[in-house]
This record gives sequence, structure tokens and C-alpha cells, in this order.
Amino acid sequence: MSEIDLPESHPRYQSLLTRHRIEDGVDRGITSRQGLIAEGRGEAFDYLLGERTIPSADDAARAAAALLLLADRPVLSVNGNVAALVPEETVDLAAAVDADIEVNLFNRTDERMRAIVTHLRERGADEAGVAVRGLDADARIPGLDHERAKVDADGIGGADVVVVPLEDGDRAEALAAMGKSEVVIDLNPLSRSAQAVTVPIVDNVLRAVPNVADHARDLSGASQTELEAILRAFDADAALEAAEDAIRSGELD
Amino acid sequence: MSEIDLPESHPRYQSLLTRHRIEDGVDRGITSRQGLIAEGRGEAFDYLLGERTIPSADDAARAAAALLLLADRPVLSVNGNVAALVPEETVDLAAAVDADIEVNLFNRTDERMRAIVTHLRERGADEAGVAVRGLDADARIPGLDHERAKVDADGIGGADVVVVPLEDGDRAEALAAMGKSEVVIDLNPLSRSAQAVTVPIVDNVLRAVPNVADHARDLSGASQTELEAILRAFDADAALEAAEDAIRSGELD
Repeated sequence: MSEIDLPESHPRYQSLLTRHRIEDGVDRGITSRQGLIAEGRGEAFDYLLGERTIPSADDAARAAAALLLLADRPVLSVNGNVAALVPEETVDLAAAVDADIEVNLFNRTDERMRAIVTHLRERGADEAGVAVRGLDADARIPGLDHERAKVDADGIGGADVVVVPLEDGDRAEALAAMGKSEVVIDLNPLSRSAQAVTVPIVDNVLRAVPNVADHARDLSGASQTELEAILRAFDADAALEAAEDAIRSGELD
Repeated sequence: MSEIDLPESHPRYQSLLTRHRIEDGVDRGITSRQGLIAEGRGEAFDYLLGERTIPSADDAARAAAALLLLADRPVLSVNGNVAALVPEETVDLAAAVDADIEVNLFNRTDERMRAIVTHLRERGADEAGVAVRGLDADARIPGLDHERAKVDADGIGGADVVVVPLEDGDRAEALAAMGKSEVVIDLNPLSRSAQAVTVPIVDNVLRAVPNVADHARDLSGASQTELEAILRAFDADAALEAAEDAIRSGELD
């Protein structure tokens, strides 16, 4: 990777790459002020986790892959930080599980929506034939403020499984109330969004999104029965507890 | 306080006030991108601490007050986040311990320097007769990059005690190497800056700066012997350990 001038073996590689991508996202009008603050919160939790994918998060990533492969209409929801941090990785995951992508912002403006849609198209979505939705905004999620409720009828509106990385609690709960199954990627195991969903992955999006894609490719030959067994064996509460334990016992330095 | 339309008793009052002040800081050209990310990291640690001043942090605030009252030339170093979050509180502390303020930025630009100096003067420094330094930049801290090394000869350059809230590790270590006593306010007990200094206060600047000022007023009649006894009784390592314990055992929700 030539984005930053450091070998991947550098101990601060991942954190410096993250910082670089977020700064670049601000320059492109993709990342918001709230997104920068959220990035900082994530950094602190990741530091406490030891900046690694813990075993329970890897189990969750495998369950998420199974859920996505079982889905009829999976959609990956993308906000400003996800677009800045893992654009190619998100497109790759969408291709691996045959999902659409939908841009959905907490602070929605037409300008940011268009900047992010363009960014994702340029970072591989057009080439991979992955649909990037979000500009139609012709459906609403019940129970949310007007701007936050906007979704595409053909995207999140009609989806049965939604991946909502770095999502806020209200929206995760409102989507769950619509009967949708959700995968959340969130570094805080006791956030409301992590608590509300079918499969919470307590991990950095930089590690989690490619990891779910890897599991999906690994499971591409599995039968429906096998996928259902993987999903059934996944215990969300136990995974959140394991993540909390890892944070409590992690090295604070 | 009428800055935000919420009673102080609201459970999210402090966090919403912080968010409001930081956003306002961005609008004024005071808070940087790095400052927004740092704010998020602080939010996560404060959340783990329970958003409260733990007893060991209160002890540290009292020791910091004693150190400042014993100082010949105390200086409060202010960066973009401190200026945005606690401008009046910093001026009040400077007045209480007869200190100067010096603006010192990680990402130093003339424009931001001037915006922050003006902000502090307007937020009470001129009225209180507190000097706001940093624009002279006629001395250097040995061992730091050119821009980061700049200080005022009459300010931090000649100070015997420096308060460096939200400081980075390199600068805290370089100031310690110059033989200066330092007070750091940092929510991560194992940050290099917290480890490097005489009095680390593991607390939110919103709570810690007014708390040190309160202790200073409380101790204003104390003798030098009494102040020295308070300082001697403070154990920095034990305070950091207590803060780490509080973070480990805090409620993650």
C-alpha cells in the first residue's frame, strides 16, 4: 500500500493509515466534524482492545458473513467515516455477498451525499458493478427525525439484512424495530447500537470489513443449513461480554 | 449557563456543552482536525471513568494548586481544545495563582495563534489583567521540531512551573528535561505525558481546571510549609494507578 510512506509492519501503521484516510476524507468533504470526534472515540477503545481482532470479534465476523449470504436483499450502509476509512474494502465486501451499498448520513447534505457516492464509485463500485444508492431517498424509517429517516425504497427500505458500521443507537434500534436483521461494527461493546442488533462486531472497521469479506468467500460453498448453523451458534451477548472483558483487561499503554 | 439550552442537571449536560464548545471552536478557527479527534479520545476515556472527578484526581488538583502557589513564574499553556473548552476557566485559574497564559499549538499557524489569543483576551483575560503570551516565540524548547519548540522567553521559556492540559508526550517530556515542574491534565492515565510529569490530573479539563482554581483559592492563606507538605504527600504513581483502576472497573454504559 503506497497511501502512506510506511511498511505495514510499522507498529503505528494502522493508526497512521487511519489518520491519513480520515484527514483525506475531510479534504474531500466526506468526513464531518462529528465524524472526527467519533474517530477519536474509536481510537481510544481500539487502544484498550490492543488494536487487534479478538477471537469473539472474529466469530462475529463469520456469523455476519453467514447472515449476509443467507440474506435475500442485503445492503451495506455507509456513512462519512466508513467511506473515508474503508471505501475499497466495503465495495469488496458488497461484491463478495452480492449486496448493494447505500450512503446514509447522520448530518445529511446533498453535497456530502454526492461526494461520498462519487468517492465509492471511483474507489471500485462502478468497476465491480456494485450499486451505490442513497440519492433517491424515496422511503422513510419510522420513528426517526425527517433527515435521518431518509432511505432508498430499493435499498435499505426493502433490505432484509443491513450492515451498519459505526451507526448511532437510534437508527440501529429503528431498523431493528422494522424487523430487519443488522450487523453493527462498533468498538464500544456497550453502545446502544451494539446491544440492539443481531450480530455486533466489536472491532475496528479497518480490520472488520475485510475480515467479513474473507469469511464470506470462505463460506461461499456452504449450504443454507451450514450457514444457519453458524448463525445459530453465534451468541451476541457472550460476544459483547468477551469484548468488554478484553477492554477491561487490555494493556493501557 | 445559557450557552446551551439545557439545565445543568441534564444527564448529558456536560457532554453536550463540550460538544457545543468544540464545534464553536472549529467555527472560530481555534480547534483543529487533530483537536476534534483528540476530543473523541477524551470522551471515550471520560465515559469509562464515569464522567466524574475521582478522589485521586481531586488530590492531584489540590497538589497542582499547591505547586502553582509555590511557583515563582507559573505559566498555563493553552492549545486549541483548551481555548475552546475552558477559556474563562483558564483565565480564572491564572488569576487565582497569579500565572500568565501562553498559547502553544501542535499545529502552529499565525492565524490560529492570533484567533486563540484574541479569544482568550475577549473571554476575560484582558479584564482580569492576565497576560496572554505566545506570539513572541523568541525562545526554543531543546529537542523538539522547530515549530513545536517555539515558546516565549518571558512565558514558558522562563517558567518554573507549567500547566500543560491535553499536552502531547514529546512536549511534556522535553519540558521536564528542561527542569520545569509540570501539571498535565489528561484522561489517559498511561499516556506518556501523564507519566512524565510532577502532577498528572486524570480528569476532564472541564472539571479539572475550575477544580484546581477552587483548591488554589482554598489554599490562598496556607504557608509555604503547608503547601510543600501537600505537594510532598501527593504520589503521582499511586494517582495514575487509581485512575487506571477506575477506568478498568467503571461502567461501560
